[in-house]
Amino acid sequence: MTDALRSFKLTLAYDGAAYSGWQIQKNSPTIQAELEQAISRITGQTVRVAAAGRTDAGVHALGQVAGFKADTDMAAERIKGALNAVLPEDIRIIDCREAERDFQARFQALRKCYRYHVWEGAAPPLFGRGHVWAVKRLPPRESMEAALKRLEGEHDFAAFQSTGSQVKTTVRQMFRAELEVRGKLHTFSFQADGFLRHMVRALVGTLVSHDGSANIGNIIKSRDRSLAGRTAPPQGLFLAWVTYPGQGEPHAAVGPFDRFD
Amino acid sequence: MTDALRSFKLTLAYDGAAYSGWQIQKNSPTIQAELEQAISRITGQTVRVAAAGRTDAGVHALGQVAGFKADTDMAAERIKGALNAVLPEDIRIIDCREAERDFQARFQALRKCYRYHVWEGAAPPLFGRGHVWAVKRLPPRESMEAALKRLEGEHDFAAFQSTGSQVKTTVRQMFRAELEVRGKLHTFSFQADGFLRHMVRALVGTLVSHDGSANIGNIIKSRDRSLAGRTAPPQGLFLAWVTYPGQGEPHAAVGPFDRFD
Repeated sequence: MTDALRSFKLTLAYDGAAYSGWQIQKNSPTIQAELEQAISRITGQTVRVAAAGRTDAGVHALGQVAGFKADTDMAAERIKGALNAVLPEDIRIIDCREAERDFQARFQALRKCYRYHVWEGAAPPLFGRGHVWAVKRLPPRESMEAALKRLEGEHDFAAFQSTGSQVKTTVRQMFRAELEVRGKLHTFSFQADGFLRHMVRALVGTLVSHDGSANIGNIIKSRDRSLAGRTAPPQGLFLAWVTYPGQGEPHAAVGPFDRFD
Repeated sequence: MTDALRSFKLTLAYDGAAYSGWQIQKNSPTIQAELEQAISRITGQTVRVAAAGRTDAGVHALGQVAGFKADTDMAAERIKGALNAVLPEDIRIIDCREAERDFQARFQALRKCYRYHVWEGAAPPLFGRGHVWAVKRLPPRESMEAALKRLEGEHDFAAFQSTGSQVKTTVRQMFRAELEVRGKLHTFSFQADGFLRHMVRALVGTLVSHDGSANIGNIIKSRDRSLAGRTAPPQGLFLAWVTYPGQGEPHAAVGPFDRFD
């Protein structure tokens, strides 16, 4: 039986507003639960799905990656269509392909990219209200950009980790930390080999404060969560994409503020 | 008492998804009901609010205009802030100013602009799903643009009116009818001195079909609703703005697919 198991790599997008995050919880709707239930429905098997990034409650994804194993004859492309037919409309499969037998979405990820949307203003735009954090006044752009530069490279990001987290090491490699500004919309993006719990939201909460942006170097050095800024709210955060060794360009859905041309 | 009544012009934006349209109905949430209730709360008076365009269930607005009269000392700018503090987050006041005593949002409107978003594809983009109509394959752009040109000018639009409507005349002046294409996103916009019931949605339903775009001249001439296309669904439609004599540029909120830069 085990020999007949095929391994699949799913890329999916979701609007996290209605969910208590990725991971299965009792009595709360989660992305993992919806996905496992959908896969059960189409394959008739009970499966366990593992994701590259276990997004928190209210956090969105454009290109989350998840793996599962199943004994099925269905072509990967048909699985995609069948899943989209049974999943709720706020979860969409972007891609489904057969993967190496030992594919592990979480542990084999090379690089992940998270995006965070901040709207500079007292109130968010009506039609983007579910996907930004409105911040009345931001530090000067140059100040935030200098702080972002300071985040790049290998650092101990302990100061940006939720208190109470248990991980072996809080050192991460930040490949790129950038800011794109389009009018009032400020999009932060972070590419790293991994992220600590609430790390992106703590980074953004720090960057949007004058003190935080100015003192980011000292905050990193301190390893003290209390010196970093507040945890930015979940609705501005998107897991944008994940890459794997030898698997080419990642897939991703169109985001709420993406350009179409 | 009547002498003390001041007249106000509100410009408002709303996401119509949760509402049964503008107009008050028993046992259904409507924009008008929310607004009248909010004005009552802040002024202590029972008021009636009249809108430029009575949008249907599920239709959105970026710059709807509504008028009301109240005996209040509050400055217009304070009314705006107070209303936004009590209104649900899917209804936002963009502007509030004192108007002429005899201001009538509906009857004095010079020009209204409606926008309709069509997404060319089998499925809408996840984060725009509430604000577009996904159409698998559109006619060639030149064909839709030629049809739009044909709509401009004074015409009897009876073929694009819901059956059963009762209006004095079905002749309207279409100042501009245009299409903007950004990748898969096709935004139709219509500026006219007035619109018949479901007219924009019937126009869009006609334009997105090959036959409809090709034969729009004959469809207009026929005055026959059955020759026009289907009524496009409400979620793609936005009342963009309304102008009045001597009142300058209209106000409007940022739409879900607007550029920010």
